[in-house]
Amino acid sequence: MSKRESKVIVGIDLGGTAVKIGILNQEYEILAQTSVPTGAERTYGQVIADMGKTAMALLTGNGYGWEDCLGAGVGSPGTVDSENGIVLYSNNIRWEHVPLAEELKKYLPVPIYADNDANCAALGEVVKGAAKGYGNAVLLTLGTGVGGGIVIGGKIFGGGHPGGAELGHIKNGSEGRKCTCGRYDCLETYASATALRNDAKKMAAEHPESLLWELCGHDLERMNAKLPFDAAALGDGCGKRLVENYIGHLADGITDIANIFRPDIIVLGGGVCAQEGKLTEPLNRYLEENCFGASVAYVPRTVTASNGNDAGMIGAASLVPIWKEG
Amino acid sequence: MSKRESKVIVGIDLGGTAVKIGILNQEYEILAQTSVPTGAERTYGQVIADMGKTAMALLTGNGYGWEDCLGAGVGSPGTVDSENGIVLYSNNIRWEHVPLAEELKKYLPVPIYADNDANCAALGEVVKGAAKGYGNAVLLTLGTGVGGGIVIGGKIFGGGHPGGAELGHIKNGSEGRKCTCGRYDCLETYASATALRNDAKKMAAEHPESLLWELCGHDLERMNAKLPFDAAALGDGCGKRLVENYIGHLADGITDIANIFRPDIIVLGGGVCAQEGKLTEPLNRYLEENCFGASVAYVPRTVTASNGNDAGMIGAASLVPIWKEG
Repeated sequence: MSKRESKVIVGIDLGGTAVKIGILNQEYEILAQTSVPTGAERTYGQVIADMGKTAMALLTGNGYGWEDCLGAGVGSPGTVDSENGIVLYSNNIRWEHVPLAEELKKYLPVPIYADNDANCAALGEVVKGAAKGYGNAVLLTLGTGVGGGIVIGGKIFGGGHPGGAELGHIKNGSEGRKCTCGRYDCLETYASATALRNDAKKMAAEHPESLLWELCGHDLERMNAKLPFDAAALGDGCGKRLVENYIGHLADGITDIANIFRPDIIVLGGGVCAQEGKLTEPLNRYLEENCFGASVAYVPRTVTASNGNDAGMIGAASLVPIWKEG
Repeated sequence: MSKRESKVIVGIDLGGTAVKIGILNQEYEILAQTSVPTGAERTYGQVIADMGKTAMALLTGNGYGWEDCLGAGVGSPGTVDSENGIVLYSNNIRWEHVPLAEELKKYLPVPIYADNDANCAALGEVVKGAAKGYGNAVLLTLGTGVGGGIVIGGKIFGGGHPGGAELGHIKNGSEGRKCTCGRYDCLETYASATALRNDAKKMAAEHPESLLWELCGHDLERMNAKLPFDAAALGDGCGKRLVENYIGHLADGITDIANIFRPDIIVLGGGVCAQEGKLTEPLNRYLEENCFGASVAYVPRTVTASNGNDAGMIGAASLVPIWKEG
């Protein structure tokens, strides 16, 4: 193995409760990893010092010096100025205008790259994951909210200004659901895991005869976004209605995205994507029928994400440019 | 004036009924222009031969040889493979897989560039027009349908595959309006000039006491997308309701676009944009209130297009790369 081939990348997944740090090779395989509590109540200087020192210790503990490291990528929640490595605003960790790259470099003297975590996750699926080999991909994460990341020509497309590419905040249904962003009826209010859970709670409360109510142990607090799918698979009418409604809204959002970006592939991430084919098969049927110019133009396929719990670290690592010999 | 400064560009606006051809300088001012009937019932070879010979004659008639011409751009309706200069599909002129650039070069031996006409119009507004000086702009044309063109980093973004960037075909209302694309409730079914005209016809027929019915001379065939605005300005309740409803749908579509692309500026083209401030003022108020992260992130402004009837030629000419000394 040549010296160059053995160079590694650091991928840092900055979350609300924990910072996950990994050392990856240039095939984006995780060679070593650790995590530290975020401790977001502290100053950003303390948070970043911990992050940098832990990463440096992980490198040296595994026999690497900073000179063996091509760079470090950080995926941060919120709005990130990726060009300057600044976290402009993150509600999650209560940061405003934090010079993340500059600070981190004090403890980890390698090139530092930062971007929004959903953007990182999208690029991560392209370099190693469900969209591997595709240059144009859109990732839609179905979790607490609906997040999105867009990759065009192998690069993250973050919009013309920081704060763009908010795919969860396009108009979807018409029930007048208030979104956390202030607008009504955003895709997120229908297609997030939270939305499905809330819809399922309402449905179960109204239908004590349903299997759905049975499956949550007659306790609405135990409802989650998986139980409606379980109930539907067992033939429960309430479960079927919930799943059908959920997929209908998601299908509309995905078709909007296909019509706008016409990507090679659309990747679904977040907890709900564990449903795999139960989700993607009806979505792909809908796309084939409803995508603009479906009979003459390319219709992208929907798949589920494959980087799982490592998506954050892989995605962050994918920010670091590597030049492979061809 | 140096020889280089005096080089010109040919801009060709290929329409369903006429082909408009202009000679432009590098400030995109039209120095000379002409037009020929498209005659789309003929073979594409004949249409393109006419186009090329007419352009060449316009050049020589104005004292330019092909060597004085930096190149020619063609804006075509339909789906265009801009990389290879091929019109993949155009319902409008009934073309399929037409090698436009290759054919045109036989008669006009200069570098040939081609793209979808709405894409060209968007770039045209950036090089000379309402979005001049901005690198990231979205053009939304409100005409028979709702078309769109996206410019990112000073270049047309046409989606990952030909047939992308269909901004008129994102989900909007919830009345179950069937769109020409096969889907229901696309933005186009609410925000095109056609949609406004149809809504106004319905409203006038139901309200013979309205000023709207008066203004169309008691003849629904004379209804157009301007009369509702005229009626509203004169205090007519029907006119006001129509305008409010129309702008509400358009505002939602524009906010979706702002949330996805976060461009510097959003330009409205097509017949309806003659309303100028009556349209853009309420739209900008809505954006300020509803754009994602409006309190912390950049909120794009909406303006009306300014290239008017020359938009096609200017837009087509803007496809030709020029390198200004700066």
